[in-house]
Amino acid sequence: MNYFQKSLALHKKHRGKIEIKSKVPLKTRDDLSLAYTPGVAAVSSAIGKDKRKSWELTNRANQVAIVTDGTAILGLGDLGPEAAMPVMEGKYIIFKEFADVDAMPLCINTKDVDEIVKFVKQIEPNFGGINLEDISAPRCFEILERLEKDLNIPVFHDDQDGTAIVVLAALINACRVTGKVIKNLKIVLNGGGAAGIAIARLLLHQGIGDLIMVDSRGIIYAGRKNVNPYKLEIAKKTNKKKVRGELKDAMVGADVFIGVSKGNLVDEKMVKSMAKKPIIFAMANPIPEIMPGAAYAAGAVIVGTGRSDFANQINNALVFPGIFRGLLDGKIKQVTTKIKVAVAMALAYSVKPEKNKILPLVTDKKVVKAIAAAVRRAKRI
Amino acid sequence: MNYFQKSLALHKKHRGKIEIKSKVPLKTRDDLSLAYTPGVAAVSSAIGKDKRKSWELTNRANQVAIVTDGTAILGLGDLGPEAAMPVMEGKYIIFKEFADVDAMPLCINTKDVDEIVKFVKQIEPNFGGINLEDISAPRCFEILERLEKDLNIPVFHDDQDGTAIVVLAALINACRVTGKVIKNLKIVLNGGGAAGIAIARLLLHQGIGDLIMVDSRGIIYAGRKNVNPYKLEIAKKTNKKKVRGELKDAMVGADVFIGVSKGNLVDEKMVKSMAKKPIIFAMANPIPEIMPGAAYAAGAVIVGTGRSDFANQINNALVFPGIFRGLLDGKIKQVTTKIKVAVAMALAYSVKPEKNKILPLVTDKKVVKAIAAAVRRAKRI
Repeated sequence: MNYFQKSLALHKKHRGKIEIKSKVPLKTRDDLSLAYTPGVAAVSSAIGKDKRKSWELTNRANQVAIVTDGTAILGLGDLGPEAAMPVMEGKYIIFKEFADVDAMPLCINTKDVDEIVKFVKQIEPNFGGINLEDISAPRCFEILERLEKDLNIPVFHDDQDGTAIVVLAALINACRVTGKVIKNLKIVLNGGGAAGIAIARLLLHQGIGDLIMVDSRGIIYAGRKNVNPYKLEIAKKTNKKKVRGELKDAMVGADVFIGVSKGNLVDEKMVKSMAKKPIIFAMANPIPEIMPGAAYAAGAVIVGTGRSDFANQINNALVFPGIFRGLLDGKIKQVTTKIKVAVAMALAYSVKPEKNKILPLVTDKKVVKAIAAAVRRAKRI
Repeated sequence: MNYFQKSLALHKKHRGKIEIKSKVPLKTRDDLSLAYTPGVAAVSSAIGKDKRKSWELTNRANQVAIVTDGTAILGLGDLGPEAAMPVMEGKYIIFKEFADVDAMPLCINTKDVDEIVKFVKQIEPNFGGINLEDISAPRCFEILERLEKDLNIPVFHDDQDGTAIVVLAALINACRVTGKVIKNLKIVLNGGGAAGIAIARLLLHQGIGDLIMVDSRGIIYAGRKNVNPYKLEIAKKTNKKKVRGELKDAMVGADVFIGVSKGNLVDEKMVKSMAKKPIIFAMANPIPEIMPGAAYAAGAVIVGTGRSDFANQINNALVFPGIFRGLLDGKIKQVTTKIKVAVAMALAYSVKPEKNKILPLVTDKKVVKAIAAAVRRAKRI
């Protein structure tokens, strides 16, 4: 059986991956009197008088909602909220295992921006943070912006900033390994969705000078048709040589290919057209833009994918558990750019990078601690 | 320390009562490849093609949402969604411990009927059933009615039907103990909220002839001012002698007092004015309408409360775990009156009743099995 068949069998056997557990005993009438009525009335009354006590007397301080509308599931597209659940369940078992965060999946039955914003505001009293997930672009940008303004708890769209952070960390370490200088890199970024825009923003913030973004219609430039405001913002600051054409045209002479798009878009010829020591981050899930074997065969020196079954996994699972651990512990209300950069640095420097290990493993528990500490430090600075 | 102080300490120590657990291992890269990407893509794709597979491949079939707006928390009133959480957490540890149901608390930040209905419809894809909780009357009636029409999963408002079912079961057994005949009982029902209306409806369905309902403004009768449509419906079918006045007037000569109202509304004199062998169900939480000691001193032969720390606990915690176990296992879409009566009978006959044990203990695990079986049988008949 391959991973897909094995995974189906695993999910069928356990009927999904999560369950709710009690932290207190519940065997006797006395247990009930404390956990439930009459005792619980004192707890509710205390919070009724001072809502801040919900952080001490309920699980709120350790609880994160993972909210999705199922419109951008992995690289599979809009499969609906039911189909999003296995990915969300996967996220929260990662949350629990690696960061001891209690996450709850909410795969909701609406695609309307106003309704999604309202929904998240309605559930705010239950949670210490909100993780938006698999919501398609460009709606996800407006949703995140509006929620960041309206909520008193942190909101993090993992597909945007989780991916941007892990890519920046991988890029830092790919440079450490190859001796390239990050500000001098020529980078092709394929994918104009949530991850693509967020990666472009973070790389531009870090002073990357030569960046070309490509979407399903080809190279993006200011003035091109079919460019939404978010892509236009990026277009104005990138592609300074005004290259036009398709992905293969952008890749000529590039140091780095970053793919957050769809499987099998890159062939060996395109890799061969890149600069010396090409770096390939082919992060489409489940099928990468080019399989590692083919990329290495064409001369790539470092190849990363989003998957757990290849070396160099560049997956936001490296980031989100630690980010939320730090946000919750530090009672931080906003994920600033300073925090994002600090996390990328902490992630990069949590490992001594090698060609086949530019990032630590997702299963490496030191990573969460390093990232959480970086989040708390970045707040203080 | 009393229960209230002990309960506060317990909640502070554990920061609430629940956590999320993984049902699958997550230690190695291989584990990740199955539980998360790439394997999970096959699971999402399978559900994307056939949404019914969400019942097999995610935790949905065992997962219930507890939805509240915090407007009617225990007998404490409208304390807001944050303050509702300890009670909701209490409910789901009971769900898990006694029925192995995974419940999730959603204490939401809106009191608008349309918004609450919309909210529940938005989360439907995640759950096998919806438990409405602590939503004040009369809004709760409209919300339940609309959701029963619109959803493809069962909706149960525990404060309405959970309470009505447990009261009917207690009444059946109080009659078995005292030799009274249920259809001949003269019953005073104090409380015109969610529980009061639902109890009245179920008792009327069972052919109770002499029922007087009392709310905070006194005895209810057709034509009285300040009677909402739900109370009016009850008023038309009850209080046939057209008694007017206050609670104390209604109680003269009554066989049974059922209180789902507020603490300390009944005194010994009122109990003494009742018929022979008075039966008192003083179910206000946390403080009952009359404390058991006082009721017995005034001549009551059977006294029940909602609390875990007295004998004869008449609490919907006896009902909701088994109801949902049965609904989920039987894939039942609606909680019909037939199901409600069947559950009350199963609950009553799960114990050999005595004055101090008219109902089984909430901690008695046989109860859940008996109720779940009754739910499944009632569907088939």
